[in-house]
Amino acid sequence: MNYKLLPRLDLPNDLKKLSLKQEELLCEEIRAKIIETVSKNGGHLSSNLGAVELTVAIHRVFDSPKDKIVFDVGHQSYAHKLLTGRYKNFGTLRQKGGISGFTRPSESEHDACVSGHSSNSISVALGMAEAMKLSGDDHHAVAVIGDGALTGGLAFEGLNNAGRSGTNIVIILNYNEMSISKNIGGIATYLSELRTQDSYKRFKTGAKKVLGAIPVVGSGISKIISRSKDDLKEKLLHSTMFEDFGFEFIGPVDGHNLVKLEAALKSAKEMNCPVLVQVNTVKGKGYKPAEDQPGEYHGVSCFDIETGDKPAAGACFADVFGTELASYAEKDKRIVGITAAMKYGAGLNHFKGNLKERLFDVGIAEEHAVSFAAGLASMGKIPVFSVYSSFLQRSYDELLHDISIPRLHAVIAICNAGIVGGDGETHQGIFDVPFLTTIPGATVYSPSSFEELKICLKKALYDDDGLVCLRFPKGDEEPCDISATDSYYLSDRNSDTLIVSYGRAAVQAAEAAKELNCDILKLTRIFPLQQEIYDIIKKYKKVYIIEEGSRSGSIGEKLAAQAPNAVHVAVDGFVPTMTLREAFDLYGFSKDKIIELIRSGR
Amino acid sequence: MNYKLLPRLDLPNDLKKLSLKQEELLCEEIRAKIIETVSKNGGHLSSNLGAVELTVAIHRVFDSPKDKIVFDVGHQSYAHKLLTGRYKNFGTLRQKGGISGFTRPSESEHDACVSGHSSNSISVALGMAEAMKLSGDDHHAVAVIGDGALTGGLAFEGLNNAGRSGTNIVIILNYNEMSISKNIGGIATYLSELRTQDSYKRFKTGAKKVLGAIPVVGSGISKIISRSKDDLKEKLLHSTMFEDFGFEFIGPVDGHNLVKLEAALKSAKEMNCPVLVQVNTVKGKGYKPAEDQPGEYHGVSCFDIETGDKPAAGACFADVFGTELASYAEKDKRIVGITAAMKYGAGLNHFKGNLKERLFDVGIAEEHAVSFAAGLASMGKIPVFSVYSSFLQRSYDELLHDISIPRLHAVIAICNAGIVGGDGETHQGIFDVPFLTTIPGATVYSPSSFEELKICLKKALYDDDGLVCLRFPKGDEEPCDISATDSYYLSDRNSDTLIVSYGRAAVQAAEAAKELNCDILKLTRIFPLQQEIYDIIKKYKKVYIIEEGSRSGSIGEKLAAQAPNAVHVAVDGFVPTMTLREAFDLYGFSKDKIIELIRSGR
Repeated sequence: MNYKLLPRLDLPNDLKKLSLKQEELLCEEIRAKIIETVSKNGGHLSSNLGAVELTVAIHRVFDSPKDKIVFDVGHQSYAHKLLTGRYKNFGTLRQKGGISGFTRPSESEHDACVSGHSSNSISVALGMAEAMKLSGDDHHAVAVIGDGALTGGLAFEGLNNAGRSGTNIVIILNYNEMSISKNIGGIATYLSELRTQDSYKRFKTGAKKVLGAIPVVGSGISKIISRSKDDLKEKLLHSTMFEDFGFEFIGPVDGHNLVKLEAALKSAKEMNCPVLVQVNTVKGKGYKPAEDQPGEYHGVSCFDIETGDKPAAGACFADVFGTELASYAEKDKRIVGITAAMKYGAGLNHFKGNLKERLFDVGIAEEHAVSFAAGLASMGKIPVFSVYSSFLQRSYDELLHDISIPRLHAVIAICNAGIVGGDGETHQGIFDVPFLTTIPGATVYSPSSFEELKICLKKALYDDDGLVCLRFPKGDEEPCDISATDSYYLSDRNSDTLIVSYGRAAVQAAEAAKELNCDILKLTRIFPLQQEIYDIIKKYKKVYIIEEGSRSGSIGEKLAAQAPNAVHVAVDGFVPTMTLREAFDLYGFSKDKIIELIRSGR
Repeated sequence: MNYKLLPRLDLPNDLKKLSLKQEELLCEEIRAKIIETVSKNGGHLSSNLGAVELTVAIHRVFDSPKDKIVFDVGHQSYAHKLLTGRYKNFGTLRQKGGISGFTRPSESEHDACVSGHSSNSISVALGMAEAMKLSGDDHHAVAVIGDGALTGGLAFEGLNNAGRSGTNIVIILNYNEMSISKNIGGIATYLSELRTQDSYKRFKTGAKKVLGAIPVVGSGISKIISRSKDDLKEKLLHSTMFEDFGFEFIGPVDGHNLVKLEAALKSAKEMNCPVLVQVNTVKGKGYKPAEDQPGEYHGVSCFDIETGDKPAAGACFADVFGTELASYAEKDKRIVGITAAMKYGAGLNHFKGNLKERLFDVGIAEEHAVSFAAGLASMGKIPVFSVYSSFLQRSYDELLHDISIPRLHAVIAICNAGIVGGDGETHQGIFDVPFLTTIPGATVYSPSSFEELKICLKKALYDDDGLVCLRFPKGDEEPCDISATDSYYLSDRNSDTLIVSYGRAAVQAAEAAKELNCDILKLTRIFPLQQEIYDIIKKYKKVYIIEEGSRSGSIGEKLAAQAPNAVHVAVDGFVPTMTLREAFDLYGFSKDKIIELIRSGR
């Protein structure tokens, strides 16, 4: 595309000077830029295309960074990035050192907070709004949240506190009937009813007139009505759930009509009180393949713009897990699958046909998923909650309280364990080992290959009790010539040097050990560690622990008690966006870096 | 009291045979037994007294244990315990080996799940209800939840999934206008409006008639109404938030009227679908001091039944913290206090007068509290969230995602760190050190005395950056003659034996060291550990680490890497109910047990 406005305007300042026609052209250019960039770099497509007009309207009505714009999840912030000084570098989206796929305050003063995990925007924006109120600053905090994110309890806690806060908080509910899969649950049905109420405002006005016209003492119909008149008034004037929470409610507004959007947001701003604006948008808007299949184009790697074709996805751990679990579930009616709005990513799309009644998509509600699993387990079911590592962080208390204390048998399948690549800091699966190993009675498996995953899944379902966690990385297995096991593998090269590793990094470690002719101890069940493991380690003069995860609280830290001079390669701090290969080289998990380290004699 | 029914009935079976008069006498006896026992053993009073009739009605209508009764928090389960075989042992309430103050499946088949933490009951009950549905079992799962617990996001996630589940789930909303302090927020206001709607059912019936009477085509008033007739119908027939979620709604019902309660619960049971029954109860019902001041008698140690007098509470860490923080807040407008419905327990009742505008009680919403703190911190405020250790487990992801990644400066004051005594497994503060030390950039202080707490608070507010955690135990300080510090204290007895400890256990350890004439290293800032600490430890021949907390992921584990032969005294697994002294002896944290260990030469 020949970009006329995006490169030339001084954004966001110039936005307010544009004519409607120019605005429309700008939206077109933003869409083109998003499609062009995501088709090459991968990223979130559908959610970003749906929020283009909305973002333009927000930046015309509000004054970022004085007004704080908080994007929930941040997977709809690309237009915001293009409008706030990041057009030139947008080609580096989701690349090492480039533009993050989520908001990052370190990247721009217009990015009000870190985003990536769902449902926190109302709480964060409320903190900002209360801070402004305390400081006598009358700017606004604006939270932009999708209906999918609204299924998270944290969003509800935010609503509960924000509605009657008396602050200048504006919540924009970006209603598109989706979380990542089709949205589910009571709130979704409720919102879908609201969506169709185009007559909401007119109705409210009409109702007021009716009530005014009814005499307090009368006869016939009016008598019956008047008896409940106050109740009726209460109901009609507080008729959305959001008004029950104390918000002024505006909407639904057509989220692709710039004029209506701007008018609604201006009203919201002028109210100077907690307001919720419902905006109806179409996910994938403006790119037909994404409009037709928004779920398929939610998060993509790369694709052909003309055809929408994506490269065929290879086998991945999540698929192997899901297929294997479904085959057990066919035979064993006790097995129940649970996903928090990630049926595809978490491999549970393989629960098809008659297995569907045993698949529960609970919405973006990881806390509930675990407590729900506890209820199922206490009745003799075998619940399997499949979830991304970084999102399971939400369930820490529920794992301890509802699963571990009563020692219920539940399986947690942890996808995207370890380094994840393009999504960056917020999505790395590097904390699950540290936090899961603080839970009494937990068993943690970290298989290195598809075959090993299958072995561990069987153990988790049928041999272990209590909380069993089965963690596996994103993507495909890497060829590994050491035999699969549910416990550990030790080579017999009679070296005085030992490399200890597990999971995906163990494949690199095994290759390095082969080349260096030293021994490799590959753990599969990484927790609890049996005495045997410690005994093995004690025999070696030099021990290297290669751990694709965060250091503090790691397995390596536990092992170090028996190998005080061990060199422990692990992650300190957060891992920003970069490819898996770049991360493996940077942190020292790749075969070459392991060899380099050991040859250096450190 | 002369108990006539409680000791003689075969409960719960005989319940269904009782006359109303006998039921009333039974309720009287249950109340007397609760007051008698709690006045001696301590425990939850107000919540239990409020739920007596409700519990009798539940056990008359439902068939436990085939029907599953899930008590949220469990602090209202005493009547349930007395009705399900625990009358004889009830005198052992909250004592070692005795009856737990919460529900425990290990104690009775009638305790459907572990309780203690708030807001999980709907999720757990839904798991049970879905399990029954899958197995073709038409029994019911019943969740009993207070309006306070309903402010937790987990409860909302449960509602969202339960309302349209098509299961036999009955949610009993025990509405008493309280969490522990007065309930706050949008949902509380909303429920308080519902409470006063005695006419709800009548109104609904009336409204149906009105709508039926209005001709579709008409003139005047009816014309105006008819235009919106369908909308109006929708609103009137879906008029509570719970109906919006998909539940049938019954109530409000007088929670102390046995006849009405039983009728309402029978209706709910017969509906065989998700039903929410709102029951209005009075906290502390039947014991005047508790009725008058339900907050004061929520959780008590012991008291005089006649007068209601409680022994004067001594100084405690939470009070010293709160007083000191308030004095800083007087001078520094940036300081903002946050509590999750625990203003008193968390010491924030000291935010009085003009400080009140900087105190936020967010309800039982620990996740929100942390994300909200992030918003405040990003605007230059210094948020201080004061919370019990075991409840902070709920905020793990928010600490990582919203505070740690952007490296915002927020202070978390962690009350009830370490062993808590009577509340048992669910309330022990033994996991905060393991999970907080997995968070990059976190600083953790564990002071041993009031003076040290004050020193650390100042550091946390003004010297440190990022996430700073200040953990302190329940109750009073113990006299300690080693000097207060913000970092560490090392004695100089020139021994080859070193005891390392921190927090409350360090006082015992210091006494033991004195008696044994060995050295003591008392840590105050326990994380991160500076190199100096490791260097000190390396110099000793024999190292004993005494840690009042869970072993896996502990500080001792980190230290052991430099002292491979160290003896590490810590907790493995969960700590059941017992007094602090009993726990200190059992786990080896008491002076005598430390001396015994070291003299044994192990």
